[in-house]
Amino acid sequence: MDRRNFIKSGSIAAAATSILPDTPLFAQNNKKIRLAFIGVGLRGRNHVALALRREDIDVVAICDIQEESLASRRKQFQKANKKLPKEYTGGVDAYKKLLEKEKLDAVVIATPWQFHKDQAVDSMKAGLYVGCEVIAGLTVDDHWEVVKTSEQTGKPYMTLENVCYRRDVMAVLNMVRQNLFGELIHLEGGYQHDLREVLFNNGKQPYGGGVEYGAKAMSEAQWRTQFNIDQDGDLYPTHGLGPLMHYANINHGNRMTNMVSFSSKARGLANYVQKTSPGHPNAKIQYKNGDVTTTLINCANGETLLLSHDVHLPRPYSIGFRVQGTEGLWMDLNNGIYIEGKSAKGHAWDAADEWLKKYDHPLWAKYANDAAGAGHGGMDWFVFNAFIESVKQNRQTPIDVYDSVSMSVITPLSTLSLAEGNKSVEIPDFTNGKWKERKVVFALDDSGF
Amino acid sequence: MDRRNFIKSGSIAAAATSILPDTPLFAQNNKKIRLAFIGVGLRGRNHVALALRREDIDVVAICDIQEESLASRRKQFQKANKKLPKEYTGGVDAYKKLLEKEKLDAVVIATPWQFHKDQAVDSMKAGLYVGCEVIAGLTVDDHWEVVKTSEQTGKPYMTLENVCYRRDVMAVLNMVRQNLFGELIHLEGGYQHDLREVLFNNGKQPYGGGVEYGAKAMSEAQWRTQFNIDQDGDLYPTHGLGPLMHYANINHGNRMTNMVSFSSKARGLANYVQKTSPGHPNAKIQYKNGDVTTTLINCANGETLLLSHDVHLPRPYSIGFRVQGTEGLWMDLNNGIYIEGKSAKGHAWDAADEWLKKYDHPLWAKYANDAAGAGHGGMDWFVFNAFIESVKQNRQTPIDVYDSVSMSVITPLSTLSLAEGNKSVEIPDFTNGKWKERKVVFALDDSGF
Repeated sequence: MDRRNFIKSGSIAAAATSILPDTPLFAQNNKKIRLAFIGVGLRGRNHVALALRREDIDVVAICDIQEESLASRRKQFQKANKKLPKEYTGGVDAYKKLLEKEKLDAVVIATPWQFHKDQAVDSMKAGLYVGCEVIAGLTVDDHWEVVKTSEQTGKPYMTLENVCYRRDVMAVLNMVRQNLFGELIHLEGGYQHDLREVLFNNGKQPYGGGVEYGAKAMSEAQWRTQFNIDQDGDLYPTHGLGPLMHYANINHGNRMTNMVSFSSKARGLANYVQKTSPGHPNAKIQYKNGDVTTTLINCANGETLLLSHDVHLPRPYSIGFRVQGTEGLWMDLNNGIYIEGKSAKGHAWDAADEWLKKYDHPLWAKYANDAAGAGHGGMDWFVFNAFIESVKQNRQTPIDVYDSVSMSVITPLSTLSLAEGNKSVEIPDFTNGKWKERKVVFALDDSGF
Repeated sequence: MDRRNFIKSGSIAAAATSILPDTPLFAQNNKKIRLAFIGVGLRGRNHVALALRREDIDVVAICDIQEESLASRRKQFQKANKKLPKEYTGGVDAYKKLLEKEKLDAVVIATPWQFHKDQAVDSMKAGLYVGCEVIAGLTVDDHWEVVKTSEQTGKPYMTLENVCYRRDVMAVLNMVRQNLFGELIHLEGGYQHDLREVLFNNGKQPYGGGVEYGAKAMSEAQWRTQFNIDQDGDLYPTHGLGPLMHYANINHGNRMTNMVSFSSKARGLANYVQKTSPGHPNAKIQYKNGDVTTTLINCANGETLLLSHDVHLPRPYSIGFRVQGTEGLWMDLNNGIYIEGKSAKGHAWDAADEWLKKYDHPLWAKYANDAAGAGHGGMDWFVFNAFIESVKQNRQTPIDVYDSVSMSVITPLSTLSLAEGNKSVEIPDFTNGKWKERKVVFALDDSGF
């Protein structure tokens, strides 16, 4: 892969030499990184599985407050013929003992959302790289605290937003950078996923089979459903926004300036409970989270972004991507691409497949076999690998703390916009003006970042 | 067609008897209606063609300021072996002479947008039914004036929004009313159409071939392009919103309460001119109309509506419909329908075709042959027929003045929202509270309305 051919934009080319060290530090000393997991439920399990496939990681410790999760991980390690990690448990502060007692390079956090901020902040203060599952914090202040802590400690923080590494998403990024779509104008994405069986179960299985949440439920329904009860807003902006930020160079020459959210009435969850278990008290709850929340965002360079959060209703899964520029557009719903003068017919969609194959991102071309079998179609491998390789090479993560909080802060801001009658709210510039000069670093080549 | 089987909703059933007279007035006396056309350019030509196909219309007069259009209509009448109508021309006030001198039942207005309001108001004051092409007025006050005039004169005003009668749109309306989608939650539509060859031509042909607009151009580019130069906002909301209003019973038990618009930068038109005719001065114009304008709307009953205006960029045509409820959704981009428990597979789209065929609206089932060959896939026939039959039967039009101005007023309101930094703006209740009691009347059966 010749980077000069791959990178056509001047600003991207300049970035490549200034950010990437010529010789990876880790390759020279070949040490294993010492990694701990805070939160090893169903999402943590995926990351653990990726760690166990690698020879460059020692999983030193794991932390969880549920014995069931710890026991399941023990089996996972045994099955992989790996040494059992030390376990920390006994309460929500157990992770602090882990940070205090273990000599580590990095942590991966996959706990309920409300714990992310404190665990990430404390981990950075303990001198560790942080790879954190999506949702950096619950409030705007939480997001600032994550940024300030990363700046003060010098420790990178990376949101493990896997859709940034989805194969079609990266092929389209390749096309964007090769100017196939021209100047970008409008982008859409979201999280449109029927989560009803994630938000309710019978306490015996993680998905469905009943309509319980909270203490009577298992896995995510234990904690996640409460957000849908308590809070209107886009509760999960990152699947859509992460990729859009890379297309639009947000925080790297561009930034999001202001936004407005609209939210429909909430009917889906109560209806689901009533239909599944007529008369169950969970059908009487006044769920505050509207069934469809739509957010519009302005960018400093004049693009508009649209995000959709739609997780309570029966529907096929779709991120709802749209990447539209002066020369054409991609939409994932119809798997369509149209490029003026290049598509087979005027005013008509090409099936995207040939385009996506032709512009397969070099990272995928190189590592598709390594990623095979990893979660979510392989994209989990890439996001985890990028984090681990950043730790090994002692370099900044490709999704850094500014990028991470920018894609996450949409949640509290959307709640605010809705509470104030669809008011336009300013989006903080977490980079404090540095967005103007920051070079693009994400997925510049096939080196893994 | 048994109306009781077709109409499941109580409010709709109640409406049917209260609004529709049992015996059409016209059928009894069998007179021809006396019709005039104000504006007989390319859009007017379509309506004239529909009139010439019918035996129940005398086209008494036509009005246009361009001899070319009048001459072309003469040929059209001659070819149809119809008596030539009287012609009014000579200036933008020529229509006033027509209204003064001719004895008429109704006018059809298909002039440039800036003339619609005065021509409609004067026609109603002259005692005529008004069928007006989309865009009721340029300002919010214009829209109020149209409403007040209709109320004071008792004369119906109908926006001739043809997409309301598109076959798939009406089949989905049928599905909505039979509760296939459950309680409606979120709806989307828009006008996503590459209009660059409509907005620029060479002065010798109506579409393309050059990059002129205004006096040097032909047909729509003579006047329409100036709006894209002067005004940011959703300039054409009705194709999307008309159908959504029928799905959501807007002004008939529901209403739109407030809205916000976002608009991207404007690049498409200048780029097009520069690409087509490098160095042409029209490439240097600062077009104010953003390439993609997105508008979010709240409804009194809790639904959200999304409208997209996207007419400057190379793209395949799409209205972008989405009709989503508690039981499933339709999207036209992927021609997909999903209905929980009824679709072939869970979490997967059905091709919409079978659904749309099964729920073909009775109006289409009855009149598809009559509509064959009419403009825009036949839907032009239905909207024109509904207007003419309303005149004949001396009844209210199925899209009345409140519905008409509601779908049109989005344009000045979106301009206002954008000018004030994506501010939420209130949407006027043109019905003055009557929306709560007004019954659904649109397309209740196969009778034509």
